[in-house]
Amino acid sequence: MEKIKVGLVGGTGYTGIELLRLLSMHPRVELAVITSRSEVGKAVSSFFPSLRGCVDQTYVLPDVDVLANCDVVFYATPNGTAMQQVPALLERGVRVIDLAADFRLKDEAEWTQWYGMPHACPELLAEAVYGMPEVNRERIKNARLIANPGCYPTAVQLGLFPLLNNNRVDLNSLIADCKSGASGAGRQANVGMLMCEAGENFKAYSVTGHRHLPEIKQGLRLQAGSELDLTFVPHLTPMARGIHATLYADLTTSIDLQEIYESYYEQEYFVDVMPSGSTPETRSVRGSNVCRIAVYQPQNGRRVVILSVIDNLVKGAAGQAVHNMNIMFALNESEGLSLAGFVP
Amino acid sequence: MEKIKVGLVGGTGYTGIELLRLLSMHPRVELAVITSRSEVGKAVSSFFPSLRGCVDQTYVLPDVDVLANCDVVFYATPNGTAMQQVPALLERGVRVIDLAADFRLKDEAEWTQWYGMPHACPELLAEAVYGMPEVNRERIKNARLIANPGCYPTAVQLGLFPLLNNNRVDLNSLIADCKSGASGAGRQANVGMLMCEAGENFKAYSVTGHRHLPEIKQGLRLQAGSELDLTFVPHLTPMARGIHATLYADLTTSIDLQEIYESYYEQEYFVDVMPSGSTPETRSVRGSNVCRIAVYQPQNGRRVVILSVIDNLVKGAAGQAVHNMNIMFALNESEGLSLAGFVP
Amino acid sequence: MEKIKVGLVGGTGYTGIELLRLLSMHPRVELAVITSRSEVGKAVSSFFPSLRGCVDQTYVLPDVDVLANCDVVFYATPNGTAMQQVPALLERGVRVIDLAADFRLKDEAEWTQWYGMPHACPELLAEAVYGMPEVNRERIKNARLIANPGCYPTAVQLGLFPLLNNNRVDLNSLIADCKSGASGAGRQANVGMLMCEAGENFKAYSVTGHRHLPEIKQGLRLQAGSELDLTFVPHLTPMARGIHATLYADLTTSIDLQEIYESYYEQEYFVDVMPSGSTPETRSVRGSNVCRIAVYQPQNGRRVVILSVIDNLVKGAAGQAVHNMNIMFALNESEGLSLAGFVP
Amino acid sequence: MEKIKVGLVGGTGYTGIELLRLLSMHPRVELAVITSRSEVGKAVSSFFPSLRGCVDQTYVLPDVDVLANCDVVFYATPNGTAMQQVPALLERGVRVIDLAADFRLKDEAEWTQWYGMPHACPELLAEAVYGMPEVNRERIKNARLIANPGCYPTAVQLGLFPLLNNNRVDLNSLIADCKSGASGAGRQANVGMLMCEAGENFKAYSVTGHRHLPEIKQGLRLQAGSELDLTFVPHLTPMARGIHATLYADLTTSIDLQEIYESYYEQEYFVDVMPSGSTPETRSVRGSNVCRIAVYQPQNGRRVVILSVIDNLVKGAAGQAVHNMNIMFALNESEGLSLAGFVP
Repeated sequence: MEKIKVGLVGGTGYTGIELLRLLSMHPRVELAVITSRSEVGKAVSSFFPSLRGCVDQTYVLPDVDVLANCDVVFYATPNGTAMQQVPALLERGVRVIDLAADFRLKDEAEWTQWYGMPHACPELLAEAVYGMPEVNRERIKNARLIANPGCYPTAVQLGLFPLLNNNRVDLNSLIADCKSGASGAGRQANVGMLMCEAGENFKAYSVTGHRHLPEIKQGLRLQAGSELDLTFVPHLTPMARGIHATLYADLTTSIDLQEIYESYYEQEYFVDVMPSGSTPETRSVRGSNVCRIAVYQPQNGRRVVILSVIDNLVKGAAGQAVHNMNIMFALNESEGLSLAGFVP
Repeated sequence: MEKIKVGLVGGTGYTGIELLRLLSMHPRVELAVITSRSEVGKAVSSFFPSLRGCVDQTYVLPDVDVLANCDVVFYATPNGTAMQQVPALLERGVRVIDLAADFRLKDEAEWTQWYGMPHACPELLAEAVYGMPEVNRERIKNARLIANPGCYPTAVQLGLFPLLNNNRVDLNSLIADCKSGASGAGRQANVGMLMCEAGENFKAYSVTGHRHLPEIKQGLRLQAGSELDLTFVPHLTPMARGIHATLYADLTTSIDLQEIYESYYEQEYFVDVMPSGSTPETRSVRGSNVCRIAVYQPQNGRRVVILSVIDNLVKGAAGQAVHNMNIMFALNESEGLSLAGFVP
Repeated sequence: MEKIKVGLVGGTGYTGIELLRLLSMHPRVELAVITSRSEVGKAVSSFFPSLRGCVDQTYVLPDVDVLANCDVVFYATPNGTAMQQVPALLERGVRVIDLAADFRLKDEAEWTQWYGMPHACPELLAEAVYGMPEVNRERIKNARLIANPGCYPTAVQLGLFPLLNNNRVDLNSLIADCKSGASGAGRQANVGMLMCEAGENFKAYSVTGHRHLPEIKQGLRLQAGSELDLTFVPHLTPMARGIHATLYADLTTSIDLQEIYESYYEQEYFVDVMPSGSTPETRSVRGSNVCRIAVYQPQNGRRVVILSVIDNLVKGAAGQAVHNMNIMFALNESEGLSLAGFVP
Repeated sequence: MEKIKVGLVGGTGYTGIELLRLLSMHPRVELAVITSRSEVGKAVSSFFPSLRGCVDQTYVLPDVDVLANCDVVFYATPNGTAMQQVPALLERGVRVIDLAADFRLKDEAEWTQWYGMPHACPELLAEAVYGMPEVNRERIKNARLIANPGCYPTAVQLGLFPLLNNNRVDLNSLIADCKSGASGAGRQANVGMLMCEAGENFKAYSVTGHRHLPEIKQGLRLQAGSELDLTFVPHLTPMARGIHATLYADLTTSIDLQEIYESYYEQEYFVDVMPSGSTPETRSVRGSNVCRIAVYQPQNGRRVVILSVIDNLVKGAAGQAVHNMNIMFALNESEGLSLAGFVP
């Protein structure tokens, strides 16, 4: 059985190491190239001893000629990096999955506003497919360029999608109160993310506006087919992995909430609508590619509460990227991703 | 300078040990009686070695005749315990501060519904003063019986009070998305609160209805002077101490949010309205009796976001109880409570 | 390819759930029976939502007639449970891997002394094979009954074995200063293991004598071929998984420490001697079946320091048990166990 | 009652903020000057919101002329900083307590070897008093310059002192296996100390030689009155505060261990020898200035095990510094330091 030749650009961050964990266990993947500008020549496993015995490669420079030998290249780089190289790779026939934000927004001006730099290849924004299989499966199959969704956007959109149609809720009443583990901030030296700062502590951040806000609104708008309003407040919670989105919306009609969610996601392998009365824990999806959802209508009032949890590094990043790859290369969707949550 | 003779009923839980930490440092307090049915005859400091050298007493039985020698008795007992003894103590002229929920609700039927037992002395519900100094200072001064507020209710009410008057917000739009550390669950053997269950994990609980909901609504209603609706979702966050309330409300008019909060709490020693743009961290109030608040109006929309943090064991329990005692005995309000947050 | 029919007795503890995580991903295993006396009739995945979609079975009673249909039965039960059932299963031709301590000690009197009960089938103590593949591989192949090693004993013995021969160290100088995560205490309601007790805290325990002491000494003695002395001090560290053994011994001769360890474990897939100067982290083996070791001779003195880390639930329990099963059934030793460490 | 005018140089690290927490509660202290080169002009409480309402000062430059108005100046700066300024301050009659390592070693060559720079004022090394009140109380009273002990050295020396005299133990058998919380690494941006690196993880470090080794050996040697050998292995444990030293020594004679320790520390307010059989937890001293010790002779063998815990930021830094100040200014030794451990 032929293997897919995979390149990874940016193999030293948390998204990168999680991709390496998943790809090294994937039966259909050959890890062909792993790059890092800062660690060139160093064994990947000397940088991440957890990979000793699993990943034998050495970091190389992110050279287009080398990457051109891959079938697909994952970018686990800071925002603004992939867009410098993607046009050349596409031209060479290499498919690309960008785990950063370079191709997530369709509106160039909006992208520039939120990311604070001009876009290097705005002509690709229209072509790039937003890599959320639950809503874009068909387009992903033949995509050359995948914009892998952000972590908060994955948890929030999957949690709200079933509500957006048929005038079920007031589209101006949406609230996403989200809590993330510290790995979402990446693996950079940063006083605020020290064990002694982020541990035993809880706080909100970016209340006036977080970069994931326009991404979420774009996705919700597309599903709803109309404008809408959303208040999004992210929080930092003292753990490494996991996002818990608590979502609020005001009903405009009487519905069977549980039934709507179960049927909406009936065919989805990676979205799990839990039985009525459940409270999904972030650890139930730790290390796994699943989004677990529970739905509530407290005191039978007009307000619904949706709980949606993911592992930000898996379903919110590396796992969703591998899922996209599986679809792009016509593999079984769950290949390499049938992983139980890591408990305790 | 004469000291206040203090009794503590229930000295083995987290609220109890926190009271002992605060009272042992309080210059005007004599710890006269510390009770525990299960640990009678044992040195308090053998149970809590952190108190060695600070608390020399031995646990005794909670006997009314012994407690009657105190000026004031704190109850740090499970719900339903204080109400069995309080009438006898009041009759003997002892003042009481109950840190449990026995006297928090004014409506006996509502109390019975939420706490699942008949009330032992409903005739005292009207007299009991809800011990939140910021709104009940005058009544606390002469109170015989204080119902010390719950932890979530403290964070939520202090966060919402300034909005409730003058038709500033839609009173049916209120949401309290609250996150608590694990000490809120008390010091009971409980699989769900094990390090390996509650650590590295985040989840909601009691979404259909938490006992603090009627307490919060009662308090808000009193301030607003009218009925209102509130959605309250508590979450468990992997740390020991701290509550972070993220509060949402829809404005009905244009206001200067920052100014309203600053002037509302101008005279309060223990409520700190932070400068515009701040995000209060729970650790900034760890071990201290302060409630820190920041206010936002994201994207200048109609929805406001209020962030309110407390230490659930201090401002949300033991510290607020000592504050009440200070007021009851005409001491300086901050006596024994001028404590910096414990960082890191 | 035929699958091995596996039974699991005791499927509700941390060792049990880890076995389920590993066995559900094992390509050659059919999970035939999962038992729990307390949860009979309940879906395993309703008890552990992290297994939703991975384990479909329902808990049944641990009945010998049902278990007799299995090729092998794992016991992840409290000490003293397996020994009640094992003779009947062996008689029915079922092979058994006991993850508890029932068959670890060869001396019946010693077992009774440390475990505080009479042994139910002392006649099997001699036959039981101590399931540490690195030293007992050949005997494991044909074993009917495997005594899966304890967590501390695995980390300590693998760390000390290479030193024990050829009069390299003073056999009375051995010290094992061990640190374990909280999952080692199991999934029982226990005040001392609450998040608020075990979190942000570090302490020693069982300093006068821990049950793993005789097991470790028995194993070391067998390798050394003589009596020896060992001081063993276990500590509880505030994390869920991982054991770090810091081992001390006094050299009696000049040796090339690094070389001795590398050649001793050269053929072992699951013991990784790190390059000189490394410090193995527990997280580098989290979720993986590897024991990572680094060796030191500080200031070129006579004392050596060996650092040995494992995941107590994997190499120290469930993973080593699966490794034993692989050997017993002539599978590739790493089948189902080629797992990278879970970082972060 | 006149107050002591205190200066603090380096008010932005963990030792600095802990000094501010303690000094702001100290009834005899006036915080006269707080310096930070990087934060000049900024309110201290805007940098550390936990100090809002407790510390009103603004950071200024560390100017000798300004500091000269203080009675005593604390240096909570990186190694090599205090020595640049101390001679000038001493000349102006200001007493100095250095919490860094500049004046801890008596041997200039040894200092240079371990700290990698020439010493700026080696002529003061002899005069500087090692500020460990338990052994240097008399010299501290009149000292101009205090070298405040390191965190590991405090826990290890207090744990070993009672054994060093009267030929009780083999002085070449000493081992200190030490575990520290992450705050010991200071408040610098450092990938290794990120929540996602140091959390849920345990590891040794600096096994070949840590800077605290010569400091510990110097102190032990002085007490023993002879040369000795010590193996010192520090470890990082996933919590913010606390050091647990597990100390090993081989007896050369039969002694009553418990009695020796109790009588050695009988008069000490801040060293607590626990009852036989106790295991001191680090949290029992969290936030307090106490060193708690328990002593063992497992299986009545020749090896003793001493457990010694401190809060590295209090007894291991800021608290011990305040203790020194109290002695230098003839205050009650426990003034401002009668603090219960912070539990949970």
